[in-house]
Amino acid sequence: MSESSKDPQTAILLVSCPDQPGIVAAVSAFLFENQGNIVDVDQHVDSEYGVFLMRVEWETSGFAVSRDEISKAIAPLAERFSMDWSLYFSDVVPRVALFVTRDNHCLYDLLSRHESGELRMEVPLIVSNREDLRPAAERFGIPFHHFPITQENKSDQEGLEIELLNEHRVDLVVLARYMQILSPKMTEAFPNRIINIHHSFLPAFPGAKPYHSAHRRGVKLVGATSHYVTEDLDEGPIIFQGVTPVSHSDSVTDFVRKGRALEQSVLSRAVWLHLKRRTLVHGNRTVVFG
Amino acid sequence: MSESSKDPQTAILLVSCPDQPGIVAAVSAFLFENQGNIVDVDQHVDSEYGVFLMRVEWETSGFAVSRDEISKAIAPLAERFSMDWSLYFSDVVPRVALFVTRDNHCLYDLLSRHESGELRMEVPLIVSNREDLRPAAERFGIPFHHFPITQENKSDQEGLEIELLNEHRVDLVVLARYMQILSPKMTEAFPNRIINIHHSFLPAFPGAKPYHSAHRRGVKLVGATSHYVTEDLDEGPIIFQGVTPVSHSDSVTDFVRKGRALEQSVLSRAVWLHLKRRTLVHGNRTVVFG
Amino acid sequence: MSESSKDPQTAILLVSCPDQPGIVAAVSAFLFENQGNIVDVDQHVDSEYGVFLMRVEWETSGFAVSRDEISKAIAPLAERFSMDWSLYFSDVVPRVALFVTRDNHCLYDLLSRHESGELRMEVPLIVSNREDLRPAAERFGIPFHHFPITQENKSDQEGLEIELLNEHRVDLVVLARYMQILSPKMTEAFPNRIINIHHSFLPAFPGAKPYHSAHRRGVKLVGATSHYVTEDLDEGPIIFQGVTPVSHSDSVTDFVRKGRALEQSVLSRAVWLHLKRRTLVHGNRTVVFG
Amino acid sequence: MSESSKDPQTAILLVSCPDQPGIVAAVSAFLFENQGNIVDVDQHVDSEYGVFLMRVEWETSGFAVSRDEISKAIAPLAERFSMDWSLYFSDVVPRVALFVTRDNHCLYDLLSRHESGELRMEVPLIVSNREDLRPAAERFGIPFHHFPITQENKSDQEGLEIELLNEHRVDLVVLARYMQILSPKMTEAFPNRIINIHHSFLPAFPGAKPYHSAHRRGVKLVGATSHYVTEDLDEGPIIFQGVTPVSHSDSVTDFVRKGRALEQSVLSRAVWLHLKRRTLVHGNRTVVFG
Repeated sequence: MSESSKDPQTAILLVSCPDQPGIVAAVSAFLFENQGNIVDVDQHVDSEYGVFLMRVEWETSGFAVSRDEISKAIAPLAERFSMDWSLYFSDVVPRVALFVTRDNHCLYDLLSRHESGELRMEVPLIVSNREDLRPAAERFGIPFHHFPITQENKSDQEGLEIELLNEHRVDLVVLARYMQILSPKMTEAFPNRIINIHHSFLPAFPGAKPYHSAHRRGVKLVGATSHYVTEDLDEGPIIFQGVTPVSHSDSVTDFVRKGRALEQSVLSRAVWLHLKRRTLVHGNRTVVFG
Repeated sequence: MSESSKDPQTAILLVSCPDQPGIVAAVSAFLFENQGNIVDVDQHVDSEYGVFLMRVEWETSGFAVSRDEISKAIAPLAERFSMDWSLYFSDVVPRVALFVTRDNHCLYDLLSRHESGELRMEVPLIVSNREDLRPAAERFGIPFHHFPITQENKSDQEGLEIELLNEHRVDLVVLARYMQILSPKMTEAFPNRIINIHHSFLPAFPGAKPYHSAHRRGVKLVGATSHYVTEDLDEGPIIFQGVTPVSHSDSVTDFVRKGRALEQSVLSRAVWLHLKRRTLVHGNRTVVFG
Repeated sequence: MSESSKDPQTAILLVSCPDQPGIVAAVSAFLFENQGNIVDVDQHVDSEYGVFLMRVEWETSGFAVSRDEISKAIAPLAERFSMDWSLYFSDVVPRVALFVTRDNHCLYDLLSRHESGELRMEVPLIVSNREDLRPAAERFGIPFHHFPITQENKSDQEGLEIELLNEHRVDLVVLARYMQILSPKMTEAFPNRIINIHHSFLPAFPGAKPYHSAHRRGVKLVGATSHYVTEDLDEGPIIFQGVTPVSHSDSVTDFVRKGRALEQSVLSRAVWLHLKRRTLVHGNRTVVFG
Repeated sequence: MSESSKDPQTAILLVSCPDQPGIVAAVSAFLFENQGNIVDVDQHVDSEYGVFLMRVEWETSGFAVSRDEISKAIAPLAERFSMDWSLYFSDVVPRVALFVTRDNHCLYDLLSRHESGELRMEVPLIVSNREDLRPAAERFGIPFHHFPITQENKSDQEGLEIELLNEHRVDLVVLARYMQILSPKMTEAFPNRIINIHHSFLPAFPGAKPYHSAHRRGVKLVGATSHYVTEDLDEGPIIFQGVTPVSHSDSVTDFVRKGRALEQSVLSRAVWLHLKRRTLVHGNRTVVFG
């Protein structure tokens, strides 16, 4: 049974616009006047850039504007404040593709949380550059697609992947320890809709083999970072981070082991936040309405 | 130089009332119509109890209602929604009494943050049931008042303390490792205005010698809890908590040592939150607009 | 490929005895004289109880005493120092039974780490008081045994469970969110060989529904505790603990969600430590040679 | 009263040498044969570099070798195993110079722990490149030496500082938020005897203004790192690290504030570990026998 099954159906509006007085007043008045029962409202002003960001969630039941008309009803407000905005409904379940390579822990963790109802998503397919995790996918009855990647075929293969993702109407791609760098073709096809887990506390130890680098440097904590994927590797907007203590007596293998629990929890948290529409990318930062 | 010296002067309104639609709309409209530039707004609905809680902060400069008239201007709103509310101004510096016994670390930490401007408060006096920390108080040029407490004289001594606190117009009492249980006389005189630091992760290990109990139990983390003081010892609303790892090789003395850094940071955080009017007590819980 | 596959085969000796000078010297001399290459040695003196505890691990390859003779060779040392001791070999893979009820996250986490080779164990069976997780067990091809438990049949059912566990030569029982209190019959059958995960920071919130209690108390951190199971519920020796921050805006459902990542990582860590023979129970505390 | 006043007097031997069998046996036999009561023994093998590192602490009372003869008695062992070693006595109190600039929190924290007896050290002087913290030093009755530093005079000034430190027989220099880069002249004069606190999770955000960089990058945790100072800025062996959560709603000023508690606790922990001779530098890593 899904945890959310008893939750009321809601609409979620995400807004970013130039900061100016009156935005909260105008949005809340719009909802109040239409009998919208606000479940949650969060706002943030980035004073450095003069940007106002807001997330507001209200119950659709009892709301005077019918679902199809909401966008039209918001338009005047949006124009008045030059808003970038998007609207979501809690009962529209996002479709998520999981990309994996060899490590199974993030994959199993996401599927476990999916099964328990914590992550409200559909998982129409799993994509991999290797065959290793096909049995894991099959255990859960999820179609597994193998796209071997070489330097030469990468662009072509990603083209095929994008087609497949579109065919399956995928909203979000989760790189659950996918050990391939995406080309711009892919990142441009899914802007702010690809989430990666990097196994270090970014910006420390970007790139390959971060646990080896961390061990060499003699750090006393290892970290994990979930972030949206942009063209610049490991430079995308950070969603969530965690660390766990290590000591001189831990080998690289111990770093890897201790890092696993971290990676899976940091990634699952990021996916949950995205699915709940609690993230808003702004510049190279993520506002998380946690 | 105080960190806050360049901050704009603001008014802060804290509200709690029965939950109903339209509160955010009404409050934000009131501020907007009076040219109030909102700096920060946070709200929380306790759906279990049907209570709405809000903190809104706006710049006084440019606000159409003069400072003395704000309360009167809010009154109709407050009545309409049956609000409990309080109004603060960021330039009114709270007056804080520090109560100590023998341990110096929380005292020095608060005074260090006071000196650096992080904690915007005045400290007109330090109170103790012992003489041990008089030299520490004198180092910082703060009057030190010694009230020896016995079972017999406790009520009388606390009566004198309350008089002294009132004389100094004290807004907040901070028990910075004050090793005496307060009687109801004191807690009633300063409701939600006494902050204590308890050296455990409450509700684990209430009462005396928590590090000894924690060591006996063989825990792998020790904690610290800052909370408002109510009549029931160690049962008051929690403001902030922290933990730090310990191991079998740590003695009770090591627990005490590792706990110190925790205690001072957990207490200072709570005092900062209170001074910034970011806490709202509701039932036995503290809403922290962090 | 198992992480451990390239590790050398080792013998592990766990010792506890009354503290007295010369134990380290005697044990290390014994190993040195027999060409034992020490991989790891750890010791702890509980000065309160005057108890000496030691873990020493050495390579079996090159060791002058043949595997079958080691116990006999240790006997004189053991007698001289009145040692309680046990001897393990890294290539003897422990057999572990997983007990579950309804929540899947700890189960999947253990199986994922088993599959990746992190947890070197065999899992001959999964036991449950409900049918819910049978499909999960079947996914991994592990026999699932359903023992419905009522007040009336508990003792009988546990008797059958013990028979089954013995039949499968089970070394360790892991309660992976098994929502039944074990009777003394079971705990006596597997002393210091049953590991439980409790979803709170013990000794805070023992018993049922700890997240509900934590929410009611208004804590700012939720915790998880892995411990050996003794007759006294939630009172057994603690192996590992963790916490994660929560706020007033988190519902009980959010506590449950945030607690999941914690529970699985805290339990998996405890199981790893046990399988590596890095734990030594002494009184009601666990010495963890981490 | 110092926490350590009732502790027994001990000798501490720190050893590093090429790894080979028999070292633990030889050292423990040496101590046992001379009636040395071992209080603590810790060892680590860096298998990558084939280096054995050990810390052993034993009571001087009852030890058959007189204090002055211990070094001579150890010599044959040291030669046999090609040991680098050093010997300390717990009753020889290290002399520590504190270097500061403007921020007071690390200074007060160290002095508070000094006063409480947690940090067993003498503080004969405080050095600064500015006058700001003279009043703080005077509060504690510690001589304050002001050495203004410019690009031109740095080498000369550091020369004078070294003279002064030698005059005061300083064993350890602690950079308690000292905002000047040391020249090789200074780092060579005190190899592995200068501890710095850097206000980031190294190797992330080395150099100046790490909180600004962290804010710009949008991290979700800020960190602090204590390390030995080597010629390469922010590249020295790490002793201890910590992090604390931040969010999009935290300004740089909030990062600074939240970082303070971290910096002081991470620095004080490192100083405590050094004073207890629990650190051993090996290559660019610190083995911490915590």
